[in-house]
Amino acid sequence: MKLAILIHCSDKSGIISSVTHFIHQKGGNIVYLDQHVDKEAGIFFMRLESEFENNISLSGFKEEFANGMAKKYGMHWDVHLEDTKPKMGIFVSKYNHCLYDLLSRFNSGELLVDIPFILSNHQNLKYIADQFQIPYYHIPVTKENKESAETKQLDLLRRYEVDFIVLARYMQILSPKLIDAYPQKIINIHHSFLPAFAGAKPYHAAFERGVKIIGATSHYVTADLDAGPIVEQDVTTVSHSHSIKDFIAKGRDLEKIVLSRAVKLHLSRKTIVYNNKTVIFS
Amino acid sequence: MKLAILIHCSDKSGIISSVTHFIHQKGGNIVYLDQHVDKEAGIFFMRLESEFENNISLSGFKEEFANGMAKKYGMHWDVHLEDTKPKMGIFVSKYNHCLYDLLSRFNSGELLVDIPFILSNHQNLKYIADQFQIPYYHIPVTKENKESAETKQLDLLRRYEVDFIVLARYMQILSPKLIDAYPQKIINIHHSFLPAFAGAKPYHAAFERGVKIIGATSHYVTADLDAGPIVEQDVTTVSHSHSIKDFIAKGRDLEKIVLSRAVKLHLSRKTIVYNNKTVIFS
Amino acid sequence: MKLAILIHCSDKSGIISSVTHFIHQKGGNIVYLDQHVDKEAGIFFMRLESEFENNISLSGFKEEFANGMAKKYGMHWDVHLEDTKPKMGIFVSKYNHCLYDLLSRFNSGELLVDIPFILSNHQNLKYIADQFQIPYYHIPVTKENKESAETKQLDLLRRYEVDFIVLARYMQILSPKLIDAYPQKIINIHHSFLPAFAGAKPYHAAFERGVKIIGATSHYVTADLDAGPIVEQDVTTVSHSHSIKDFIAKGRDLEKIVLSRAVKLHLSRKTIVYNNKTVIFS
Amino acid sequence: MKLAILIHCSDKSGIISSVTHFIHQKGGNIVYLDQHVDKEAGIFFMRLESEFENNISLSGFKEEFANGMAKKYGMHWDVHLEDTKPKMGIFVSKYNHCLYDLLSRFNSGELLVDIPFILSNHQNLKYIADQFQIPYYHIPVTKENKESAETKQLDLLRRYEVDFIVLARYMQILSPKLIDAYPQKIINIHHSFLPAFAGAKPYHAAFERGVKIIGATSHYVTADLDAGPIVEQDVTTVSHSHSIKDFIAKGRDLEKIVLSRAVKLHLSRKTIVYNNKTVIFS
Repeated sequence: MKLAILIHCSDKSGIISSVTHFIHQKGGNIVYLDQHVDKEAGIFFMRLESEFENNISLSGFKEEFANGMAKKYGMHWDVHLEDTKPKMGIFVSKYNHCLYDLLSRFNSGELLVDIPFILSNHQNLKYIADQFQIPYYHIPVTKENKESAETKQLDLLRRYEVDFIVLARYMQILSPKLIDAYPQKIINIHHSFLPAFAGAKPYHAAFERGVKIIGATSHYVTADLDAGPIVEQDVTTVSHSHSIKDFIAKGRDLEKIVLSRAVKLHLSRKTIVYNNKTVIFS
Repeated sequence: MKLAILIHCSDKSGIISSVTHFIHQKGGNIVYLDQHVDKEAGIFFMRLESEFENNISLSGFKEEFANGMAKKYGMHWDVHLEDTKPKMGIFVSKYNHCLYDLLSRFNSGELLVDIPFILSNHQNLKYIADQFQIPYYHIPVTKENKESAETKQLDLLRRYEVDFIVLARYMQILSPKLIDAYPQKIINIHHSFLPAFAGAKPYHAAFERGVKIIGATSHYVTADLDAGPIVEQDVTTVSHSHSIKDFIAKGRDLEKIVLSRAVKLHLSRKTIVYNNKTVIFS
Repeated sequence: MKLAILIHCSDKSGIISSVTHFIHQKGGNIVYLDQHVDKEAGIFFMRLESEFENNISLSGFKEEFANGMAKKYGMHWDVHLEDTKPKMGIFVSKYNHCLYDLLSRFNSGELLVDIPFILSNHQNLKYIADQFQIPYYHIPVTKENKESAETKQLDLLRRYEVDFIVLARYMQILSPKLIDAYPQKIINIHHSFLPAFAGAKPYHAAFERGVKIIGATSHYVTADLDAGPIVEQDVTTVSHSHSIKDFIAKGRDLEKIVLSRAVKLHLSRKTIVYNNKTVIFS
Repeated sequence: MKLAILIHCSDKSGIISSVTHFIHQKGGNIVYLDQHVDKEAGIFFMRLESEFENNISLSGFKEEFANGMAKKYGMHWDVHLEDTKPKMGIFVSKYNHCLYDLLSRFNSGELLVDIPFILSNHQNLKYIADQFQIPYYHIPVTKENKESAETKQLDLLRRYEVDFIVLARYMQILSPKLIDAYPQKIINIHHSFLPAFAGAKPYHAAFERGVKIIGATSHYVTADLDAGPIVEQDVTTVSHSHSIKDFIAKGRDLEKIVLSRAVKLHLSRKTIVYNNKTVIFS
């Protein structure tokens, strides 16, 4: 049995020693430990993986941890049993590159998830859902039907017990209600190196500004548009010789890779969010 | 004799053919030609280098070009005799890394310039000027003396017949008068990947935002702060494990390399500015 | 009508002027021109694109060019009519990431080709061919049947009139006969930054050597294994914390992007091969 | 008082817990802990930093650690008191860029070292030593005088009690005796992305091969030329348009940055060497 434990709390002396001692007493062998202290903010972070030869009671472990360590240090914490398969909902609009990338990784066994459905405000990508035999729900979104569309989305998410959502170039702004229902569990890909060029048409804005580097950013969605905690970023060079169309084509390759990396980091429980930033244990 | 010719004008049919024909007739051998068309803006750009076995009259060449090609197509153009050494003024404040980098390149023969002086609003870096035996002028800048400081700066620039200015982490905003006197001839290094984090303390802002990539941008100075045409950019990865101090240290390496690249591009006449952007022939 | 013309020959004075004059006389407007001189080798290279308002006779153009320019300067040259769709044969073995990437780009209209078939020495990836409704030919290759397998491959290539071949992680060494039949028309992806780690198991070798950077290289296939002209390379950082499995996963993302870029450069006629190297007009 | 402890040994259960418990008992607060297990090789690595409010006896700490932890787990280990300034000897030949870079960082307080001398087989860079007021020793090396040159070098290193050596583009092969005297304490910069292009003239070889990426590698020197444990690597893109001279100029910028990074990692005790590889705690 293998557990991943994520912790953050006010930085104090003795936390590492206490936690590793606790794990050791429970018969666990620590196979990975990484910690970090944000000295500006005075916050301690730790991720550890521990193997247990004899299967222990997970609920018992959690209870004891909660009443001991966690209480003592005022920890935010999470314990995950490895090899559980979360349910990942995918939202798309018309662009197919991120969807194709996610599904081909899924089909290759690279992503340990279930994909109960693909949801879109358009019909365009249904053929890909069909190719990969995944249910496709078309929920159009207009100015008028925003509320009912949101209700349908939430119904779908609940019915399929979706654990987290990937916006694979979904071109609609999510409702606050939906965002609240999935805190730090909605991963978006934005087609610029944020905070530059937030909002609509970032490639056009980048072309206009004459930058020599373009990028893509994957972040957790919050109520502020394109301002959530950044999980992953990457960039590529451009020059005057590239048109907006070239920017878009080069950007596509960034977007799909950056989004997939973020999904994999989230899946392997390597992210902690605090102060609208992330700690990424990689 | 070798000439570099830079041209831009409205895009029309036949420009390349006309210009190359003209050069050929003058006995020139074209050893480099690169052209670009910004189709959005409908502008044609060309850079060519031509060798002439027999030395021709440069003023004659220019006159004929002006009255022929240039008039016909309404060109903005420039002809440069290779191996002339422009005079480069350096402005610094307290940080030494960009200055050291420029001067060590200069001392190695990597930069074909004269450096008549280093100007600073502080005394701190005089020791480096001394190390490299270059005159150092200390012109303090305060709220009160801005105008007189500017006058002194302009006097110095005129006296030494400075051709272009490099702001090697000069932490003062230049006066509009000075900027006007050196259009597209003042190269600044800003310590972020513009347009993200323009203005003061970009590393602090980047840390606060939790970005995974930081950068540096070299640009021509215009009246709008940090908004001039970008010449060169580069980036490096950071993570949660880096403090602001780490950002600054990593950034220093970017800044000096990016600034030097921009200076070399400017020196080798490989930049054309239009619409607040650059064409870089590299 | 739009033509792309690729030229290389011994470097002499007047080539650019002659060619642009010729195009102009034929009524062509040069919309792109890039040239390069390898001064070490004394070779001149040029790529130009020209638009003709009135459709001209392509064969007439070629004949005149051959007897004029080309003879005079001893040119290797090629003229391509834009928007022709070449036939691209894909060879795969068991890894699916490059195949998925190519086919999803193909399906999105990003690659202007026909894909008459996918050929493999294994059955494993037939399901992907089915997903994208492309014929899949299974031609097993063993020590014993090498010759007959090769014959089958060549038959297939001829029957479908394949123009160029992409080895999308095809794990067999091609026969010299096949390589000879497609000179500079077989594009391979090798999973290392060549010339480091040529041959089998490059990720294992990279791990063993303890490198901090891994890469992928796309090159034209020649008789020498992994030693053909390099079209495109890219790299990514690794650390001691990455296992061989991690190298392979990170490498997959490089491989598919690098291969696709090479295919697109080849398709858009932006490559010239000489001295076992490439000139890439980008 | 702050200690950095580096450990590696066969991987066993309970090491982290034991060590952190030990530190805690001694009154230490662990402010940094990173560990790594090479599962292929079955080796455990750990780096930790611990602050002690009351100054403890370093020799006492070491003795107790040696007889306890270290014996029990068969550890290779090292304890370093922070803020000690090691003595760094610099070897150069004719290229000045790495030397300038190291010395300007040294002068800025970026490198916490003493630099007792610069040693060279040429007179060329004496002027830089003079600029920075550091003793310069000229020890010519020829086929005939190799042995006596080596003796002089070793004398110098002993006299000044040099802790580690930086080869800042020193173009001579060190004698085995010197290498043996400084195991894992000689840092070299090689001007290629090793293992590609080991040995002489790597930029020429890279140009010849037509690579699209060049690099630089910093490694600990071992008896095998350019085959020691890699500390740091970086790369930059090149194209057909770059001459060998361009490769060299672009490479210079890589070399100096990569070497400085390696020196800083070594200085901050963030490197462990095993199996001719490095673990870099960054």
